Amino acid sequence: MTDDNPSSPPSAPSSSGARRPAPGTAPGELETSVDEAPTLRFLAYGPDGFKETIAESLSDFTPSGEWPVTWIDVDGPPDTRLLEQLRDVLGVHPLALEDVIDQGQRPKVEGYLDQHFIVVHMLSYDERLQLEQLSLFLSEKCVVTFQGRVPSDSLEPVRARIRQNKGRIRQEGTDYLIYALLDSVVDHYFPIVDKLGDKLADLEADVLVAGTPDVIGQVQALKRDLLQFRRVLWPLSEALSSLGRSKDPLLCKETRLFLRDCSDHVDQLKDLLEVYRETAETLVETYLSVLSNRTNDTMRFLTLVTTIFIPLTFLVGIYGMNFDPDASPYNMPELRWRYGYPAVLVLMLLMAIGMFRYFVHRRWFR
Amino acid sequence: MTDDNPSSPPSAPSSSGARRPAPGTAPGELETSVDEAPTLRFLAYGPDGFKETIAESLSDFTPSGEWPVTWIDVDGPPDTRLLEQLRDVLGVHPLALEDVIDQGQRPKVEGYLDQHFIVVHMLSYDERLQLEQLSLFLSEKCVVTFQGRVPSDSLEPVRARIRQNKGRIRQEGTDYLIYALLDSVVDHYFPIVDKLGDKLADLEADVLVAGTPDVIGQVQALKRDLLQFRRVLWPLSEALSSLGRSKDPLLCKETRLFLRDCSDHVDQLKDLLEVYRETAETLVETYLSVLSNRTNDTMRFLTLVTTIFIPLTFLVGIYGMNFDPDASPYNMPELRWRYGYPAVLVLMLLMAIGMFRYFVHRRWFR
Amino acid sequence: MTDDNPSSPPSAPSSSGARRPAPGTAPGELETSVDEAPTLRFLAYGPDGFKETIAESLSDFTPSGEWPVTWIDVDGPPDTRLLEQLRDVLGVHPLALEDVIDQGQRPKVEGYLDQHFIVVHMLSYDERLQLEQLSLFLSEKCVVTFQGRVPSDSLEPVRARIRQNKGRIRQEGTDYLIYALLDSVVDHYFPIVDKLGDKLADLEADVLVAGTPDVIGQVQALKRDLLQFRRVLWPLSEALSSLGRSKDPLLCKETRLFLRDCSDHVDQLKDLLEVYRETAETLVETYLSVLSNRTNDTMRFLTLVTTIFIPLTFLVGIYGMNFDPDASPYNMPELRWRYGYPAVLVLMLLMAIGMFRYFVHRRWFR
Amino acid sequence: MTDDNPSSPPSAPSSSGARRPAPGTAPGELETSVDEAPTLRFLAYGPDGFKETIAESLSDFTPSGEWPVTWIDVDGPPDTRLLEQLRDVLGVHPLALEDVIDQGQRPKVEGYLDQHFIVVHMLSYDERLQLEQLSLFLSEKCVVTFQGRVPSDSLEPVRARIRQNKGRIRQEGTDYLIYALLDSVVDHYFPIVDKLGDKLADLEADVLVAGTPDVIGQVQALKRDLLQFRRVLWPLSEALSSLGRSKDPLLCKETRLFLRDCSDHVDQLKDLLEVYRETAETLVETYLSVLSNRTNDTMRFLTLVTTIFIPLTFLVGIYGMNFDPDASPYNMPELRWRYGYPAVLVLMLLMAIGMFRYFVHRRWFR
Amino acid sequence: MTDDNPSSPPSAPSSSGARRPAPGTAPGELETSVDEAPTLRFLAYGPDGFKETIAESLSDFTPSGEWPVTWIDVDGPPDTRLLEQLRDVLGVHPLALEDVIDQGQRPKVEGYLDQHFIVVHMLSYDERLQLEQLSLFLSEKCVVTFQGRVPSDSLEPVRARIRQNKGRIRQEGTDYLIYALLDSVVDHYFPIVDKLGDKLADLEADVLVAGTPDVIGQVQALKRDLLQFRRVLWPLSEALSSLGRSKDPLLCKETRLFLRDCSDHVDQLKDLLEVYRETAETLVETYLSVLSNRTNDTMRFLTLVTTIFIPLTFLVGIYGMNFDPDASPYNMPELRWRYGYPAVLVLMLLMAIGMFRYFVHRRWFR
Repeated sequence: MTDDNPSSPPSAPSSSGARRPAPGTAPGELETSVDEAPTLRFLAYGPDGFKETIAESLSDFTPSGEWPVTWIDVDGPPDTRLLEQLRDVLGVHPLALEDVIDQGQRPKVEGYLDQHFIVVHMLSYDERLQLEQLSLFLSEKCVVTFQGRVPSDSLEPVRARIRQNKGRIRQEGTDYLIYALLDSVVDHYFPIVDKLGDKLADLEADVLVAGTPDVIGQVQALKRDLLQFRRVLWPLSEALSSLGRSKDPLLCKETRLFLRDCSDHVDQLKDLLEVYRETAETLVETYLSVLSNRTNDTMRFLTLVTTIFIPLTFLVGIYGMNFDPDASPYNMPELRWRYGYPAVLVLMLLMAIGMFRYFVHRRWFR
Repeated sequence: MTDDNPSSPPSAPSSSGARRPAPGTAPGELETSVDEAPTLRFLAYGPDGFKETIAESLSDFTPSGEWPVTWIDVDGPPDTRLLEQLRDVLGVHPLALEDVIDQGQRPKVEGYLDQHFIVVHMLSYDERLQLEQLSLFLSEKCVVTFQGRVPSDSLEPVRARIRQNKGRIRQEGTDYLIYALLDSVVDHYFPIVDKLGDKLADLEADVLVAGTPDVIGQVQALKRDLLQFRRVLWPLSEALSSLGRSKDPLLCKETRLFLRDCSDHVDQLKDLLEVYRETAETLVETYLSVLSNRTNDTMRFLTLVTTIFIPLTFLVGIYGMNFDPDASPYNMPELRWRYGYPAVLVLMLLMAIGMFRYFVHRRWFR
Repeated sequence: MTDDNPSSPPSAPSSSGARRPAPGTAPGELETSVDEAPTLRFLAYGPDGFKETIAESLSDFTPSGEWPVTWIDVDGPPDTRLLEQLRDVLGVHPLALEDVIDQGQRPKVEGYLDQHFIVVHMLSYDERLQLEQLSLFLSEKCVVTFQGRVPSDSLEPVRARIRQNKGRIRQEGTDYLIYALLDSVVDHYFPIVDKLGDKLADLEADVLVAGTPDVIGQVQALKRDLLQFRRVLWPLSEALSSLGRSKDPLLCKETRLFLRDCSDHVDQLKDLLEVYRETAETLVETYLSVLSNRTNDTMRFLTLVTTIFIPLTFLVGIYGMNFDPDASPYNMPELRWRYGYPAVLVLMLLMAIGMFRYFVHRRWFR
Repeated sequence: MTDDNPSSPPSAPSSSGARRPAPGTAPGELETSVDEAPTLRFLAYGPDGFKETIAESLSDFTPSGEWPVTWIDVDGPPDTRLLEQLRDVLGVHPLALEDVIDQGQRPKVEGYLDQHFIVVHMLSYDERLQLEQLSLFLSEKCVVTFQGRVPSDSLEPVRARIRQNKGRIRQEGTDYLIYALLDSVVDHYFPIVDKLGDKLADLEADVLVAGTPDVIGQVQALKRDLLQFRRVLWPLSEALSSLGRSKDPLLCKETRLFLRDCSDHVDQLKDLLEVYRETAETLVETYLSVLSNRTNDTMRFLTLVTTIFIPLTFLVGIYGMNFDPDASPYNMPELRWRYGYPAVLVLMLLMAIGMFRYFVHRRWFR
Repeated sequence: MTDDNPSSPPSAPSSSGARRPAPGTAPGELETSVDEAPTLRFLAYGPDGFKETIAESLSDFTPSGEWPVTWIDVDGPPDTRLLEQLRDVLGVHPLALEDVIDQGQRPKVEGYLDQHFIVVHMLSYDERLQLEQLSLFLSEKCVVTFQGRVPSDSLEPVRARIRQNKGRIRQEGTDYLIYALLDSVVDHYFPIVDKLGDKLADLEADVLVAGTPDVIGQVQALKRDLLQFRRVLWPLSEALSSLGRSKDPLLCKETRLFLRDCSDHVDQLKDLLEVYRETAETLVETYLSVLSNRTNDTMRFLTLVTTIFIPLTFLVGIYGMNFDPDASPYNMPELRWRYGYPAVLVLMLLMAIGMFRYFVHRRWFR
């Protein structure tokens, strides 16, 4: 589920995802207009192995005490039945489930009794920045994640690590899984930031030559993407650090150390984003001054041409007058002088040269 | 009661509503210049049913111990008599009642002994943003709300939920009713924000083509609306979070959880509004650079035309001079050459082509 | 005593009022260069009545234990003798008295043992914003206020309420009197803010049509007034809220409630002022883009006229050349064609129409 | 020792004074490259009298227990020998002495065991703002101050007060002396701020008429001075308030009250400076719009002249064509009409008037 | 390892150094793609002497209890083997080692049980600002530093001080060494800031004459460098002050005093950088107004030339018309007047003078 449609005309980010309930609806009502049931991916694991099941209903999965950790990965918008099962079976709080349905959430961490509800966003960048909300529930033995129908690959590296028993993920509990998921999401931000940085560098070069006429539109679009990214990053930083500081027994001390590391990465990204934003901020002004410079150059060229030719044209106009030399000796006697024509030509040449020198002297050209 | 008249000329938001008392008036005086008595809508309910009464006076309503919750909805500016009744019968603090009369309040929550006084704003957007102050009193058994004469429909969904016993509103006390009302008001902000976002996107597109000449006036108006909205949203966020954190026994723990959710919604709106504001901020500058670009293009066109034709006009001017070829062999002998005229025509054609090529070479056109 | 002279050229607010002591002077020296003694207005009152005396010296007033509250209102800059009397008789701290002499104070509340010293500003707006410092001393039985020679009417409503025994002012102590005075001063800010808002709206309309040439000067002046106002309002808000929170026994609980209300009013004003400031901030930029638009229009008009007529002028120039048709059959035979002249006229008409159509096609006009 | 050389080209404030040690030098090394010994002024005093001695070495001064307070005033950059004496005799911390040598310090207050080290700046303004670092050591019986060779007169009023036994300075201890010195320095800021304000007002007037061409350079210089001033004022405000709040037994309660007053003065200056800065901020933009206005006026004038004369020139060009009326009756028969010439003149006059009226109608002129 | 390549096109700082791990990698994995082993420089010292060894492997170094402090200086990117040795032998935390591999860290201080991990940056400036990450581990007896292959000379002065037993570095423990290293790094920032200040002053002068056309590109580059510097300085200031305040027994009280001094230096740099940034911020706007001024001048020159010559050209055009004086007495009788031609010449001269005077009168020139 993306927040912004790339094919749409330039548009500010919308407040409400497609699945926001009507204003004034009773809170905690798990009504969705979703017809198709989402796909559920059960991944239960422990130090000794793992079991992966794909199903369409929560009841298809028989939780066995065998595995210390179960990760239920819901792909696609959840339907009412599933949400009610989650509420009833796993005891997930209805207000949190409502936030799963409504897609416009800010990144946040909410503590409910013996569980945490976390909202982050997975990003992709292809001309425009795309957001996909990822909701995570953390309880003692179970992690539930909600994402769009086409599962983003931000979580795939974690699945791979579980399947291949890489690192110590199979030795740890649900808190480490949550960390691994969050860390993977944040790690995937780095290439996006790089792409935005490249785009910015391209635009900067374009602006300095004022090349393409639509550069301003692209700068506007980039600025909006950076604002959008910031909207994702700032509250995430807060959320992660509040999670890291929380005294909740669900999170062991070592995991908190890892979360601090993850929070550091977000801070790095924030720093970079701020630099990008401040740079982008000045691009329009820079473009203006480049344009102004160009207008000035054009103006000077026009003035040069005009200033050189207008007096000359006036001069030839004088000798184009029809005063009758026969009527009076004062009437344009030059017209009958022996060297009248060559003299005028020479005069005009001298005038042109003088004018040109004057402009060169005043450093009119660069 | 709206804060801004759409038919008026562009105007900054006014400090004083129509009903502000004269400076220096003694505080707590409940003098109003309202002639017409407001309409009172009594809605008493409990888990077992509800009773709705419409009256013109507080004394028309006999409070029975039957219903756990009574919601008194005052439509229209309150008159002195009603305010005095509220003060005497329900024990509402005079300073709070004064804030009901004076319409220019910021959103706030004030605690008085055993009651809370809350001010929020209902919004509507039709070309311009309209504000309507909603004042709420919360006491243990009674909620009083004050709104404009034409009751805004922000509260109607709550009435419907009470009448239809939808959700658990009838099972809960006055604190839940207050939450339901605030939540409904905040929910109604979302479509307004969307409309502002659409307007912004339209203006952005307009600005990039510098289409209509009044786009700048519209940008100014939108900015003012966004500032106005922010003026409503920022203190509301503070007020809600202070309400959620207050240890007041009037608010049960579950309601505080709901208020936190409502506060989250306001934070979402704040985020969006900030993005809009930052985008709107840059529109004038963008417009300037689009205009500057266009001026530059116009300039180049003018320079092109002038630069091509001025030398040619000068040339034809030369051969329009009346130097007498009979008087001297140096006087414009070209005029009598066999191919004089065609030669000049060809020369001029070559000059024009050369000039044009020069401009193409310097990438004068895009 | 005003901080800014309306007849002076545009000037930033000055740091030092006229009565600042020379740098390096010993602190707490009550030296003033005031010749004329100020007018003292004694207003002693209690629930049973009041007594008003006007005198020129503190010794003219015999404080009787009869009245619970005495308000000494000093109109005009105080002279050394009065200040020394205040120090000796009422025990006012010399540093505070020094702040009364030096007019450039920020709004503040300072606690000295058993008294408070408060500085606020009374404002008036007539083309330019005028400030007048009001200093207040609060002790248990006595309030002393210092203001300019021409007593501003910001305090008059309070005097009227005392004289007419309106509200409960006569029933309360000095703390309520201080509140009533501060509230009256703040209430008088509202019409000033409205006037600034009207001025802003006028300027906004002017800017959008770029009407009068001095609009930028007026925008600058308004901005300075808004900055000045802010300089008054921000510290006042801090001062009031610190006064409201102070545990001083001089202030009873009810008065603190009233001060909170007064502080709310200042916050409303701050909100409005911020909106005004942000709007004013963008006016110059808006003006620039309106001007840029106009320049662009002018440019296009010039280009249109030039582009249409320059080729035509060139054409008539060609047929104004004097190549001799007698000398060669190639020399301008058109001049002797039967329909030569009409053909050229038609050609020029077609060229003009074509050019015009081209501009219309490129949407050169709006 | 000034931070900025007035005769140098426009330059940003430099990071390192002339006496900064090489990077990587061991801290606390009191190596200076000063050849000339500074002048020492000993001023010992008590309630009963004072004794003033000028010497070149600390050893020239025999501290007698006679005087409660000794102020050692070091004029000119200190040499290594003096610093070592100070370290050894008075027990001044080496890190603090290092800050005396290195001139680029920010205003600060540092507490070392039984002494305080304070850095402030004395300012002068003569075309450009000049900074001079003043370092102060406060111990129980002794105050040491370091300043440039030419002793600034900021401290002279304090010396005068000691000599003339004015106020209570001779009755008080070292803490009051420190306050008196700091207060004198801060008092000397006021005239500087006034000068900056006058300069700003002048520039504002210049900008509005876009008078002199170098106004922008002057605005840049003023902005830099304001930034420089702010760099001095902000940390000073912090330092003073931290000094006032410190529980150090060196500072008696009364002195803290005086320091609070001094801190108030700095806050006043900060307020003013902010207003100046915000005003200066907008000057370039204002200048741009004044220029833009002027360009627009120039443009309109050019367009007017061009638009009126170009069609007329075209018309006279037509009748300058040489179509032969003898060759065909269609060839310019107008040339032989009886009233041809007057008719053309009248036609041209009408065209010019019409054009002019059109421009007046479109309010082209103001 | 530099963060920015000077030969590359203008580019925003990149998010990921070359050695960032792939997204989703398990944390704490010490995999590097480094082939070449780094150079290790062991510097063990005590009050009595020092021993310096250069090796390629940690195992080449036999730690003897002889020396109280050992500084292991790793030049060049560390390989996996070295990192594992550090983890196993010295007990360095894997997350910290990961930060050594990944070069894009922000300056920070992290406490792990009995060691501190510190990241700072060494800077160089040669046309563009270059960053090199310096990672430091502090444990009780050992300091490990990681830097690029070409060891920057920021640390060389500290080595020299150890070798030459200058100051008290050999008398102190690892905490003093860390301070000495950080202080040396910060000291090396000062010349960089000076270079940036010089560059800024050059650009400012260039902007005021709008000399070279690429000045805007250079301003952009400088702004980016300043942003980059700020990105290094702000978190460093936080990190140092948190280190100075930490109660860790690794840092003795005296060292904390030194760290406070070092933190003061960073604050000085921050102040300067802010001034530079604010100055740089306004350069583009200033450039715009200088350009606008120049355009205006060009415009006026063009208008002057055009306005003087266009009417004259029109006039000579009139007398170039071919109305036949033989056909009618009204047809241009002037052409046959005795003084027709001189009269026209005089008329044109008067017109030109009048026009010129008009422009001078309107102060068209400066």
